[in-house]
Amino acid sequence: MDKARALAGAVDEARQWGRLMELARIGAIPGDGVNRQALTALDRAARRLLIGWAEAAGAQVSVDAAANLWLRKEGRDPAAAPLLTGSHMDSQPEGGRFDGIYGVVAGLEVLSALHDSGVVLERPLEVVAWTNEEGSRFAPGCMGSMAWSGQRPLEAFAENTDADGVRFGDALAEHLAAESDLPRRPLGGRPHVYIEAHIEQGPRLEAEGLDIGVVTGIQGSRWFTVTVTGASAHAGTTPVSLRRDALQAAVRAIQALNTLMADPSDRLRFTIGSLTVEPGSSNSVAGRVRFTIDLRHPEQVVLQERGDAVEETVRRAAGPVAEVAVAESFNAPPLDFDPAVIADIVAETQTLGLRWTTMPSGAFHDAQLVASVAPTGMIFVPSRDGISHNPAEFTTAAQLAAGTRVLAAALARAAN
Amino acid sequence: MDKARALAGAVDEARQWGRLMELARIGAIPGDGVNRQALTALDRAARRLLIGWAEAAGAQVSVDAAANLWLRKEGRDPAAAPLLTGSHMDSQPEGGRFDGIYGVVAGLEVLSALHDSGVVLERPLEVVAWTNEEGSRFAPGCMGSMAWSGQRPLEAFAENTDADGVRFGDALAEHLAAESDLPRRPLGGRPHVYIEAHIEQGPRLEAEGLDIGVVTGIQGSRWFTVTVTGASAHAGTTPVSLRRDALQAAVRAIQALNTLMADPSDRLRFTIGSLTVEPGSSNSVAGRVRFTIDLRHPEQVVLQERGDAVEETVRRAAGPVAEVAVAESFNAPPLDFDPAVIADIVAETQTLGLRWTTMPSGAFHDAQLVASVAPTGMIFVPSRDGISHNPAEFTTAAQLAAGTRVLAAALARAAN
Repeated sequence: MDKARALAGAVDEARQWGRLMELARIGAIPGDGVNRQALTALDRAARRLLIGWAEAAGAQVSVDAAANLWLRKEGRDPAAAPLLTGSHMDSQPEGGRFDGIYGVVAGLEVLSALHDSGVVLERPLEVVAWTNEEGSRFAPGCMGSMAWSGQRPLEAFAENTDADGVRFGDALAEHLAAESDLPRRPLGGRPHVYIEAHIEQGPRLEAEGLDIGVVTGIQGSRWFTVTVTGASAHAGTTPVSLRRDALQAAVRAIQALNTLMADPSDRLRFTIGSLTVEPGSSNSVAGRVRFTIDLRHPEQVVLQERGDAVEETVRRAAGPVAEVAVAESFNAPPLDFDPAVIADIVAETQTLGLRWTTMPSGAFHDAQLVASVAPTGMIFVPSRDGISHNPAEFTTAAQLAAGTRVLAAALARAAN
Repeated sequence: MDKARALAGAVDEARQWGRLMELARIGAIPGDGVNRQALTALDRAARRLLIGWAEAAGAQVSVDAAANLWLRKEGRDPAAAPLLTGSHMDSQPEGGRFDGIYGVVAGLEVLSALHDSGVVLERPLEVVAWTNEEGSRFAPGCMGSMAWSGQRPLEAFAENTDADGVRFGDALAEHLAAESDLPRRPLGGRPHVYIEAHIEQGPRLEAEGLDIGVVTGIQGSRWFTVTVTGASAHAGTTPVSLRRDALQAAVRAIQALNTLMADPSDRLRFTIGSLTVEPGSSNSVAGRVRFTIDLRHPEQVVLQERGDAVEETVRRAAGPVAEVAVAESFNAPPLDFDPAVIADIVAETQTLGLRWTTMPSGAFHDAQLVASVAPTGMIFVPSRDGISHNPAEFTTAAQLAAGTRVLAAALARAAN
């Protein structure tokens, strides 16, 4: 394990922080935030910056058909299954400077540490930036890792459109054309392990005074889109008793869903994050409302029971004045990470003398998809006040570097 | 009242319907709708059609500085204050074939009936087409009647622009240049009475099996914009108990407002027609929600009490997790029409043997402005399914003719 210690020792806290801050300028929004949507010019600009640093560290750059970006540094045996790390570079519309991009930059930092230290691992190291993890421009999220891991064919997303009506297929083609100077690699692979570093995006590590969360798995998610259709009418002339008000029906539905989703143990996560009204005019009764449901829980039985009750709950609450359609857009069961990878991360965290705990991930990550193809684990670093998906998202340079040292050491350990 | 009966008897249902259908071709959109915006080439084409019919009925045509179009037929005494009727010719962007234009064509029909019957009233009859009632190309609406009645100077609107950035002042100048062949008349006047015929734009007359609504006034309106600010957070990692969810706070506020605005008599109109969520991502807790309130009622005391309670109601319901801001964007007190004009309309409706009721107007009309200058009333005819501001807007030829007969008879009665 000398290599693990040498590699961890070559992690450069200031360099990593500087790179994150430089990347945060691309798509910067007020309050230290970032809005960098997948497959946009901003996304491409951030990738070019990353590519420059990777090439300076002796990495080979390539891109696959899903626009996943790959940085590879050879080990002793070029034919060996590679060590894989990475995350995503796209952000929420009002996102922060660390979600996703930290895992990519941490991977690059390990790559740079290999370059600087002269350590040669048994296996190649690959760093990947997965396409469209957030799902905020094109739903669903994790398109890149989903297509790469073979869970869904890339073509399945082609017709999905963003808020401006742009097809994912067209945005992807435009993006790949702009990166046609990069070598193309096949979609798919069989890495030896996958370890993803990420901010916790929750309050626990900070609250417990810990440095590292060794992630044991990811809670399951079910996403729904609910459409409530009534009839638009003149706000001044239509008596309330004769209205088919889609917004009022949606409000009743949300109340009923709140009851359905109630959880005294506070482990269930139920969120309505998007709601749109048509025609959306202040003096017109709403004719149609669309809202999303994001339901998560670590136990499959809870997801099953509550999720399956959504449609009937909404229909009953909306009542006869509105038509209701419920579509499930995403369904990911809870997942347990690989015990051997978890053990490697724990061992190196202890060797580095860091304070740590095991914990499930509340958020969804590309690791969930990769886990179907390779032994997978994740490393969490603290999030100040538990804030994420928000410009105020923050983790100190030292906390980020500690996570990267664990990542470097765990990858080195797993190389054998 | 022989003249009233003779004039009503000369109203020609088929001619009036034919004119409406011919006008509906100018700006026709799919589904029998009309999109004819104020001061456009389409507006001018419709006015030329109207002018041709008016001149054939012996009317003198003129235009004022606000581009209000006037059709005048003399009575016995040219110096007497004229009888005035009319409405507007512009439509909603996805409007119907009857809103506004019916009142203008009904006035023209009375003019034609005078011509055909040889009836000579004591006073001149003037039919007016007010400029830009809808306010959909240039805000605010009712510009023509507002400027004519002296409520606001015409110059106050000059800099208002449409969606393409065209100034109202420029559009008006272009329009007046295109109508420079028409005599110009001064802006303003003192008519003896103003009676406007209009479709109900609500479901009541049809639901109650009635022919005519004798309008007693226009209900008052108060419009508010409510902003509820919480904190955006990650939908997967943030325990529900720790959230400051702006959407859930807004839902609680809407429930509380529903209770505040409850009205067993179903006269109060309470509408939330627009609601937007930030960041509006399915997997982010809502950080901010904005929604509108449109509150209308015929009684000032009700508007005052309920409207003044909005802010406290929202604040209490939203609770400590959210900040609340309430801004009032519009406040128009209720208006009562002239009792003598109402009595004239009632008397002639009864004489004609029609089924009728008195009712307040739920919508705004030019009559609201004219009422400050002349004794004013309105006549409503049924709207099928209460639908308006929609291509599906419909009233039968017979229902429209009944309204015009009442208009003709009431004007004749008011002439003395």
